[in-house]
Formats: sequence, structure tokens, C-alpha cells
Amino acid sequence: MGRLILASASPRRRELLALTGLPYEVRPGGMEEVIETEDPEEAVKALSAQKAAGGLSEAEPGDVVIGADTVVAIDGRILGKPRDEAEAFSMLRELSGRTHQVYTGVTVVKKGREDEACTFAEQTSVRVLPMKDQEILDYIATGEPMDKAGAYGIQGRFAVYVEGIEGDYQNVVGLPVCRLWQALKPYRGELI
Amino acid sequence: MGRLILASASPRRRELLALTGLPYEVRPGGMEEVIETEDPEEAVKALSAQKAAGGLSEAEPGDVVIGADTVVAIDGRILGKPRDEAEAFSMLRELSGRTHQVYTGVTVVKKGREDEACTFAEQTSVRVLPMKDQEILDYIATGEPMDKAGAYGIQGRFAVYVEGIEGDYQNVVGLPVCRLWQALKPYRGELI
Repeated sequence: MGRLILASASPRRRELLALTGLPYEVRPGGMEEVIETEDPEEAVKALSAQKAAGGLSEAEPGDVVIGADTVVAIDGRILGKPRDEAEAFSMLRELSGRTHQVYTGVTVVKKGREDEACTFAEQTSVRVLPMKDQEILDYIATGEPMDKAGAYGIQGRFAVYVEGIEGDYQNVVGLPVCRLWQALKPYRGELI
Repeated sequence: MGRLILASASPRRRELLALTGLPYEVRPGGMEEVIETEDPEEAVKALSAQKAAGGLSEAEPGDVVIGADTVVAIDGRILGKPRDEAEAFSMLRELSGRTHQVYTGVTVVKKGREDEACTFAEQTSVRVLPMKDQEILDYIATGEPMDKAGAYGIQGRFAVYVEGIEGDYQNVVGLPVCRLWQALKPYRGELI
């Protein structure tokens, strides 16, 4: 028996993990994240493994740790969190009127069974309506873009600009709950 | 100038309309809804128009009324809200392991300009993982299915069984906010 530990500071991921109905604790690691690849899928897998490793260092035998990381990619290039409003503007202008990809990487690992760790990345495509510059500025003024990969939150005011998606919606919010639910199958019965 | 009035009792639609950032009031009509077609797209369009007409009867000149209705369809057949847990079970068993469609019909109409009323239906496809009977029963025990078309809420515990969607996610929750935002374009500047 062990605890399920979410190694993430994101309040959105916390809410999404609650959808599984499993008991869990949140332990955001304070680790510096290092990306050594420019491939979005490989990057989120590596970052999720780093976050899980951070959580694992404070876990007890039997605990199951989840690490996750999300990036937005367009034309194969990664858009992270904007550093300022000017960068948010240029990111949103790039997403306007086009389809981009959102990748969330997830690592699930049990303390004491690190050799059975599972890492995967889930991809969702997002079609964004053409946005006028004033609409982009109005959206930035809501404050939503600043702490989010790609400078938008699909679950907030940006929803009016999202024509449609293909794939797991929750993956865009920050955690692919359907695939995670499957990955947690071996552990579901042993969590306290 | 006029008010934006949502003629719907659904708390989910209320939250979704808030994503537009527009001021609005909620006035659920008490009308009996009558469907005379078995085509899901035609049905939600007709029902949204009925709800809008109900809201219109209490509106003042210049008010803009939104009516909306959502159904789940599989193999072209409409699944409404389950009458009891047995019906919820049979609906969920039918959705298990397959792709179905969700249709939301929306009518936007301004009091005094009824001839310019706009009605549309938006469709989203939803892929559901295969569910075991026990998983269906566990989901029914959460209480979520009972007030929802197709016996599930994509924004709740059912999320772990939704492999992916194609289209507008919020349309499945109950209101296609992106297309609605476009439909409200002529009125956005004149709402109070």
C-alpha cells in the first residue's frame, strides 16, 4: 500500500487528477527543469520524468508518483510560458487562425519499482479562430495567458476562439486523464 | 441597448456563457419541450428555438435571447436524459467502446427583430473507452448520469473513459461557445 503523489504545482492538474476519484497528495518538486531536445514529444516526456524523479526523492516505498509537463507546439517548434505580455502577444498571433498541437508528457513510477516506470506523451490538435490584434490584447488583459504554455488556457476565456480540437481535451488543460487512468491500473487497488 | 438572456436552467450553460465575458441574465422558461423529428440535428435546432421563444415571451424590446438544447446520438438515434438508473446503465453500455455524436442546437434572437433569428446546430464526436459493467455501475453510483443527455457528463468523473473528441468540447458540455460567440457578434456592442 502507498500514496498517490502528484509532483506538480499546477492547480489545474490537481483538479484533473481528482476526476479519477483516487485519493492523492500534491508534492510539487522544486527542481530546475532542463530540456535537452527541441522535439515537443521528447521534451515533455523528459520533463515529466524529471518531475517524477523529484517527487520520488521524497516518497516512501510503495508510493506512486506522477510527473507531468505540457507544451504547445506549432510547426514543430515549442512554445513555453510567455515571459511577458509582448511574448504572449507574439505567441497568440502565431496561433491565430491555425491548428497547433498540445503535448502532455506523463511519468508514473512506484518507489522501489523504478524499473517499471511508465512514461508517455499524449497529443491533441487545437484549431484556433483568426483573432484580431485587439482581440489578442483584450485576451491578454484578462491575465489568463501569463502562466500558461502557449499563452492561453483552453478552459477559460480563450474558449470562444477554439473552433475545435482532436484528441483528449483534458490533455490540453494539462493532464490526459483517460490515458493516465489506464496507466494507473496496476496501482489503483493499492492506494491509501 | 438590451440584456442578454439565457433561456436555460442548466448551471453548466450558465458557466459556459460566462466564458464570453458578456453580461447576461438567466431566465429558464417553464415550457414543455416537444420534438417532432427523430433527426438529432433537426431536433436540437427545434428545441433551441422553442426555448428561445419561451424566453422571448418575457423579454423586452432590444433584449437578445439564447435558447439551447443538447442531445447525444448513436447510430443516428437520440439518447435523452435517463429516466432511471436502469436506463442510464443501458445507455452507457451502448456508448461503451464506441464513437457517438453530441449535438447542441442554439437559437439567438432579438426581441423586436424576430425575423433575424439565427438557429444552428454544432456536432462533436466523442470516443468512449470500453467500459466493464462494474465500471458503468460505479459511474452511475456517482450520481452524475441522472440529469444528463446520454447519461454522462464529460466534465466530471466520466472524463477517464473519454479517449478523445473531435470538435468543440464545450459543445459536449452544453454550449458551443466558439460558434455562439460568432453568432453574438452583431449584438455584442449593444448589451447592458
